[in-house]
Amino acid sequence: MNPNLANSVGIVAPQRMTFTEPLPLRSGRVLEQYELVYETYGTLNDAKDNAILICHALSGHHHAAGYHSETDIKPGWWNDCIGPGKAIDTNRFFVLSLNNLGGCHGSTGPTSINPETGKIWGPDFPVMAVRDWVKSQARLADALGIPSFLAVVGGSLGGMQALRWSIDYPERVRACAIIASAPKLTAQNIGFNEVARQAIINDPEFHEGHYIEHNAYPRQGLSLARMLGHITYLSDESMRNKFGRDLRSGTLSFDYDADFQVESYLRYQGEQFSANFDANTYLLMTKALDYFDPAADHDGDLARCLAQAKAKFLVVSFSTDWRFAPERSEEIVNALIHAQKDVTYLEVDAPQGHDAFLFPIAPYVNALAGFLRRNHDVAQQEAHHAR
Amino acid sequence: MNPNLANSVGIVAPQRMTFTEPLPLRSGRVLEQYELVYETYGTLNDAKDNAILICHALSGHHHAAGYHSETDIKPGWWNDCIGPGKAIDTNRFFVLSLNNLGGCHGSTGPTSINPETGKIWGPDFPVMAVRDWVKSQARLADALGIPSFLAVVGGSLGGMQALRWSIDYPERVRACAIIASAPKLTAQNIGFNEVARQAIINDPEFHEGHYIEHNAYPRQGLSLARMLGHITYLSDESMRNKFGRDLRSGTLSFDYDADFQVESYLRYQGEQFSANFDANTYLLMTKALDYFDPAADHDGDLARCLAQAKAKFLVVSFSTDWRFAPERSEEIVNALIHAQKDVTYLEVDAPQGHDAFLFPIAPYVNALAGFLRRNHDVAQQEAHHAR
Repeated sequence: MNPNLANSVGIVAPQRMTFTEPLPLRSGRVLEQYELVYETYGTLNDAKDNAILICHALSGHHHAAGYHSETDIKPGWWNDCIGPGKAIDTNRFFVLSLNNLGGCHGSTGPTSINPETGKIWGPDFPVMAVRDWVKSQARLADALGIPSFLAVVGGSLGGMQALRWSIDYPERVRACAIIASAPKLTAQNIGFNEVARQAIINDPEFHEGHYIEHNAYPRQGLSLARMLGHITYLSDESMRNKFGRDLRSGTLSFDYDADFQVESYLRYQGEQFSANFDANTYLLMTKALDYFDPAADHDGDLARCLAQAKAKFLVVSFSTDWRFAPERSEEIVNALIHAQKDVTYLEVDAPQGHDAFLFPIAPYVNALAGFLRRNHDVAQQEAHHAR
Repeated sequence: MNPNLANSVGIVAPQRMTFTEPLPLRSGRVLEQYELVYETYGTLNDAKDNAILICHALSGHHHAAGYHSETDIKPGWWNDCIGPGKAIDTNRFFVLSLNNLGGCHGSTGPTSINPETGKIWGPDFPVMAVRDWVKSQARLADALGIPSFLAVVGGSLGGMQALRWSIDYPERVRACAIIASAPKLTAQNIGFNEVARQAIINDPEFHEGHYIEHNAYPRQGLSLARMLGHITYLSDESMRNKFGRDLRSGTLSFDYDADFQVESYLRYQGEQFSANFDANTYLLMTKALDYFDPAADHDGDLARCLAQAKAKFLVVSFSTDWRFAPERSEEIVNALIHAQKDVTYLEVDAPQGHDAFLFPIAPYVNALAGFLRRNHDVAQQEAHHAR
C-alpha cells in the first residue's frame, strides 16, 4: 500500500457534471452546453456552510488532493495544503476542485467535440475570461446544492478567480483567499505570455491550432513555452540554490549541448509538460491571464470595483516572487482598505519564487488555516443565532 | 545634409585586418586565419597613450559611432556616448571598436568560408570564449601600433571583455570600465539563454546550423530568442512606462492576435532583429556569456583572480537592471576591494533596465567621462616625467 495515502484524503475519483443551459461568455459568444470535471474532499455539512472552492492556476486541474489509485505515487497538485488536519482541513471542510472550461483535463475545452459541427473545437473554442470561469463555478455549486462558499481559495490565476468571485457573487462567498496573485498583469507579464504563445503558434506542427486533425502536435513550441514559464515561476535565489552553475559533466562542451544542470532541467520540464498538456488550452489560459483586469469596468478604480464585495479577505504574497511580486498583492490590499473591506495581508519570506504558493510554508499555511477556521467559526455562530 | 552628423564623429568607414598567425582558442581548437572588421574615431597621439577599446555586447558590432553615409539616418550603437565632447571624447581619445570573432557583421564568423573546407563554417565555427576575443583584440592593437590602452570599456558582455583584459593583459590596460555586467551568469541568466537557443535549434529551418546551404533560415526561432531577450533588457518599470496595458485597438480581440501594444512591439523587435542577425552567431554569443567565469581558474576566488590586475576600475550598475543586477556588479567591486585594487563604483538610478548602459544618463556618462579624463591626465603626467 502507498504509505502516503495515510496523510492525505486517500483515493479519490473525478466526477463529471453536464450543463445544458447555455453559458454567455465575456467574448460575446455562448457555450451552448458543457461538462465540468471535479473532485470533492471531505463532507458537506447539513447547514451547507463548510464548502471551500479551490480555483486552479494556468496548468492546474481538478485533481488537487489525494491519489487516484493504490499504486498512484503522484498526489493532487495541492496535496500539501488540502487534507485531514492540513491548512484546508478536510475533517472540517467540504472541498470542491474543478477543471476549468477550456482546460485539457476532462472539462469541455479545445480537445472536446463541438456539438454544432461534430468536430474537435481546437482553436475555435471560445477564449475564456476569468468571469466566465467564475460563472461556470457558480453553476456547479448550484448543481451540487452549495448555496454559498465558506471560502474561495486560489493562487496565481486561481487568485484572480477568487477575487472575481468576491465581486460577481458577493452573497455567495464568505471568505476569499488570494495567494501570489495580481489585480492585472503588467506589460512584462504579458510580454512573457506573448513569447510563449508565439513559440506555440509558430511551431510548424501547430497548423493554426488544428493539429489534432493533422495528426500533429506543436510539442517543441509548448516545451519552449513551459521552459520560459518555469524560469519565471522560480526565483533567482531558488535557481541558484537548486543548480548554481553546476556542470552536467565536469567540463564545458564547447558545443551547443546542455552544459549546465539548469539547462537539462529546463529541457526535461519542457518535455514532460508538453507531453501532457494541450497547446490550445495553454494559449487560452495565457489570454485569460492577460485579459484579467476587473477594475477596467470601473475606470481603472479597483477600490470602486471592490465596493460591492462582502467577503473577508486574506491576501498572501511571497518575497522572491517576481512574476507576481508582493507589490502586486499590495495593490489589491490597498484597494480593499480603501473600499473599507476586512483584509489580512501577509508577505511571506520564502525562497521559492512564484511556486512558493504550492508549498506548505509554515507562516503561510498557518495564516490560511487560521483564516478559514475563524470564518467557519463565525459562520457556525451566525447559523446558531439564526436558529 | 544629415543634421545629426554635426554632433557625431561624422562619416566613418569600416576597416578590415587579416591575421594569418593561428589563434589558439579556449576550446582547444585553433583558428588558423581570420579577419577583423573595425572602426576608429579620433586620432592616436604620438605617445600612443590615448587609445580606448570599445567591447561590444551580444548583438553589437564594430559600428559604435557616427554614420556610414550622408544619408544614413541610423548612427552607431553607442553614438550617444562616443563623439566630440561626449563621455568618450573623440577630440581627446583614439577610439577603436571592432566586431568580435564569431560575429555576423564582417569579422570571421559562422557565415564566413572555412578555408580548410571551402564551405561556410556554419555550426562548425569554434565556440568562442571571452578570453579568445580579448586575445584577438590584443593582436589587433599590435597591428595598429597600440602598445597599451588608456582604457577598455564595455557594457554587459562587453564589460566581461573589459574585466578579462585587466586579468590577461595587466600591462596593456590602464583603466577598465565595466558597465552593467557580472563576474559570471546566474542559473536564471543561463536558463533564459537556453530557452533562446532551444527556440533557434528547434526551428525546422535551422537544419542543425547548416541553414545557409539549405537556403533556409530559422527566422522564427531567432525572433523568439530576441523577443525573450528584449523583455529581459527592459525593466518592469520601463515596460510599464512605455506600454502599460494599452490596447492596440480599443477592445479585446478574444482571439490570439496581439491585443496589447507590448505584444506588437515585441513581435516587431523580433522580426527586425531576425532579418539582420545570424542564428549561429546568436548561439555562439550566448554560450560565451554562459561560459564566462574568470574566477573558475582560481577555485572560484575572484579576488585572487584579480590580484594580477593593474588597471584602475570603474564599475557601473543600474538600479532597475534585473538581468545583470547591481548585486552582480557589487560582486566585482567587492573582489576588487579585497584584492586592494583602485575601484570606483556607481549604482545609477535609472528606469531603463539593462538597456540603460546605452543611454547618456548624466550621472553615468559624467562618471565615465571623468574616469577616462583622470586616467588620461595621469598618463600624460607620467609620460612628461619619463621624458
